[in-house]
Amino acid sequence: MATTNGGTVEVAAALPAVTRQDNPPPKQLAVEPLTLAGIAARRAKAGKLVAGTAAYSDSDMFKSPQAYNHLKARRWDHHLSPEVLARHPCALKKAALNLKKPGMLSLGGGLPSADNFPIESLSMQVQHPPSFGKNSTEVSGYDTTMGKHDIRDKDGVYDVSVALNYGQANGSAQMMRWVTEHTELVFRPPYADWRCALSIGSTGALDSALRMFCDRNRRDSILTEEYSFATALETIAPLGIKVFGVRIDEQGLLPESLDEILSNWDENTRGARKPTVLYTVPSGQNPTGATMSLQRRKDVYNVCSKHDVYIFEDEPYYYLQMPPYDKANSAAQPGAVDVYSNQSTENFLRNLIPTLLSIDVDGRVLRMDSFSKVVVPGSRMGWVTASEQVIERYIRLQECCSQGPAGFSQALMYKLLDETWGHEGYLRWLIRLRSEYTQRRDALLDACEKHLPKDVLWLRVDHTRHPHVGEKTLLELEEEIFDSCIESGVLACRGSWFCAERDVELTGLFFRTTFAAATQADMDVAIQRFGQAVRASFKI
Amino acid sequence: MATTNGGTVEVAAALPAVTRQDNPPPKQLAVEPLTLAGIAARRAKAGKLVAGTAAYSDSDMFKSPQAYNHLKARRWDHHLSPEVLARHPCALKKAALNLKKPGMLSLGGGLPSADNFPIESLSMQVQHPPSFGKNSTEVSGYDTTMGKHDIRDKDGVYDVSVALNYGQANGSAQMMRWVTEHTELVFRPPYADWRCALSIGSTGALDSALRMFCDRNRRDSILTEEYSFATALETIAPLGIKVFGVRIDEQGLLPESLDEILSNWDENTRGARKPTVLYTVPSGQNPTGATMSLQRRKDVYNVCSKHDVYIFEDEPYYYLQMPPYDKANSAAQPGAVDVYSNQSTENFLRNLIPTLLSIDVDGRVLRMDSFSKVVVPGSRMGWVTASEQVIERYIRLQECCSQGPAGFSQALMYKLLDETWGHEGYLRWLIRLRSEYTQRRDALLDACEKHLPKDVLWLRVDHTRHPHVGEKTLLELEEEIFDSCIESGVLACRGSWFCAERDVELTGLFFRTTFAAATQADMDVAIQRFGQAVRASFKI
Repeated sequence: MATTNGGTVEVAAALPAVTRQDNPPPKQLAVEPLTLAGIAARRAKAGKLVAGTAAYSDSDMFKSPQAYNHLKARRWDHHLSPEVLARHPCALKKAALNLKKPGMLSLGGGLPSADNFPIESLSMQVQHPPSFGKNSTEVSGYDTTMGKHDIRDKDGVYDVSVALNYGQANGSAQMMRWVTEHTELVFRPPYADWRCALSIGSTGALDSALRMFCDRNRRDSILTEEYSFATALETIAPLGIKVFGVRIDEQGLLPESLDEILSNWDENTRGARKPTVLYTVPSGQNPTGATMSLQRRKDVYNVCSKHDVYIFEDEPYYYLQMPPYDKANSAAQPGAVDVYSNQSTENFLRNLIPTLLSIDVDGRVLRMDSFSKVVVPGSRMGWVTASEQVIERYIRLQECCSQGPAGFSQALMYKLLDETWGHEGYLRWLIRLRSEYTQRRDALLDACEKHLPKDVLWLRVDHTRHPHVGEKTLLELEEEIFDSCIESGVLACRGSWFCAERDVELTGLFFRTTFAAATQADMDVAIQRFGQAVRASFKI
Repeated sequence: MATTNGGTVEVAAALPAVTRQDNPPPKQLAVEPLTLAGIAARRAKAGKLVAGTAAYSDSDMFKSPQAYNHLKARRWDHHLSPEVLARHPCALKKAALNLKKPGMLSLGGGLPSADNFPIESLSMQVQHPPSFGKNSTEVSGYDTTMGKHDIRDKDGVYDVSVALNYGQANGSAQMMRWVTEHTELVFRPPYADWRCALSIGSTGALDSALRMFCDRNRRDSILTEEYSFATALETIAPLGIKVFGVRIDEQGLLPESLDEILSNWDENTRGARKPTVLYTVPSGQNPTGATMSLQRRKDVYNVCSKHDVYIFEDEPYYYLQMPPYDKANSAAQPGAVDVYSNQSTENFLRNLIPTLLSIDVDGRVLRMDSFSKVVVPGSRMGWVTASEQVIERYIRLQECCSQGPAGFSQALMYKLLDETWGHEGYLRWLIRLRSEYTQRRDALLDACEKHLPKDVLWLRVDHTRHPHVGEKTLLELEEEIFDSCIESGVLACRGSWFCAERDVELTGLFFRTTFAAATQADMDVAIQRFGQAVRASFKI
């Protein structure tokens, strides 16, 4: 992964490169970027958040006034699918709006009474900043509890009676506030009517996005990196949507390849309509690990703009952007000094490469955020950000499929992210986690330096040196090495699993490895075994 | 709702009415019905459940040997949609099977290490049997805790490190065991290869079932009660699937109406292929409250069998089957004796009307179970039961959409249902809940007796007495009464919201009311207001 080439503070200045030709420039952009202090001040001014059972909320309730200094997003009616255009607001949920009238009694909705919930309270022991349990002089855990009637009895903001009842499909107001604030703090979408909605994780969000923007009866197709996330490809294909791969380099998607494909599209040869959607993982791309620089993102965005392509931005590793690997200063060496763990949160944010959402003047990006890689996968909760039109359609779909993330997840993640950590504590956690993963990555690369044959460029295997090159297909060589790995006791993922276009010949011999789970010692042994398997196949 | 007409004990004897003609009768059915003691004995024999991170599990691991005394289910290839038939097992999850080999090291899967989870433990205070906090001499809550490494450190069965990591799309082995046991204990499907999978709730399960069995390009259509659950109708329509209503009486679906529709289907007049799916809510039907007797269920099942119709059984109120309302012995009267709250669990189970799944010799039922109405809606966790073929396809779909219910939900529901309550405690909770809801229902009906004009049959309004009958449509009268209700401060649901066929004229003037949420006093006032609104409209 590359280090940063720009920062959020630079985005406003850099914006002219990505502008809209169709409209007068937005009003004076005396944009005061939102800060942690700004969030605190806004909350203080707004007063206590009052949101009971199934309370309606949207991002507009929690955004800065300056967010509206921009133009509104474009409309996407021409891209949305017949399925999602046919969705109407839920009759029962619409009727419930009448309950806002004071004194109104309900014989209508089927919301059960919390009196019949067998759960009185939820508690959790969590690590807390600054050291997150790493410092032995500190108590390692901090207890946080949510009672059944904290709103009524303890002047609380959220409680079990609300969290565990039915809720809105975009999530509780309590979590909506947090994700909206975080989105503005970190991503600052440069159009007026952006909104968030909670998701049940990015796998579910992608499936929903596909249902919203793609339709096999229109012969729709999607573009993505030529090697792309296997689960995403498996999600797209059964929907009858064709996938086409865009060439990549170490910074991911090549804008010229993207432009070339779109400019020369021939519907008959391709067997599909010209792509209207790009699915991309801009940082820590799966499986290649590539991260797009700010300039690359702008170039890709501009090509999408030119061809009216809508973008699904999936960036679960966004906060784990690491410094380049330096063998001499490997973070995995004993006694290595971790210069990043004491970084200020301002500095951390400034050094993150802006997202596609952050340069999205059109509202043509649906961004998916996830807690899976940075808190726990088991929350099955994340969020999406897009224009009001798209989020409204997203919510209509969720009303009939997920009904939003679990109340247990919303309750406990709220206690962790909002009440215990706050925005600053969460940023500190991300800084600490990035150090942790940098160390793991360096351990993996140290092991590669030590154990892999010189002709092997990390885990891109140079197949031209293979004795059977020409006799065997790359797929056969890949299988041979994979089987040999399994025999010697190491599992790595085959590159072919990630091929965007299944019927196209492989362009190289790839193996994906991950440093997320194994210990340092195991990684050393695993890479040693992998090296032996490659050597055996190459007879070197 | 009706009281029971049969019981699980009678099912085996009653089965000959629903048999399969194509095959020899199953092997000798010396079926020992599974009991609570039987579950305990089986667990003791199986030894401790060992299931770590993302462990694979299926119902076959937890079923009684006698479950296999039946024939296998039929195959449903001819009904499954192209989308679901095109789904392949996830490459990364398949590769993970190699990790079962001892000593295998993984550079493959992206499972994060629990070392980086900021959550050390989860706790919950729950009500417990026998009195569930109703008895003031008892402590009202019972604390239960799950630590991060309970499996490793405390010889535990489940822990935070496993529950909050990625898991299988059908759920954890820990919860799979519980739902499989419960399904066998209560429903006893009469075919060999039934299986369960966790769902994210029945809304999500229905959406998935529709994607699995319906395809608009085949012009597929669905049958359901002529007044049906509004959210289900809103889920079906945007998929381009036409819905046709079957006539109902106080026991729900009329088999002769079902047979008549299917026997005389004309594809051109109807604008759809002959229906291949029936969606039904057999007890406490929403919105009519109708409950099918055992005989009615058999008759409906046999009609489906005759026409090769597959059945989606959605029965969230199954355990709330109540005795008929008796004005003289209303459970809402002060000092009413609750004869049901001390019922034995055996008696409770015996008196539940068998489900469609319980008479399903073909494996043609996909049953959806939910905790929303009987524990908390916020778990966003339930389960589905169907044949192995259908469940396998269901799991393939979940791998690309929900990834199964949240780990927080699985962890906490496991602590409640398995560790704290056990199967018996859960049945006792259901018995208590049914008493609670019987009391609420009786309060609503008491209020109806007191406040509604005599010409009103509960909340079916006799529109023939309306002064403007003939001048105004039923839809206009319904709107007038609804608006007048809102004006007088009471919200009830309009019958038209539940019409299966939107373009067909209403057959009556209906309002749905619920007794789930309001207090007894509020219900009295609400019904009084409703009565006034109807009187005003009818000028009586």
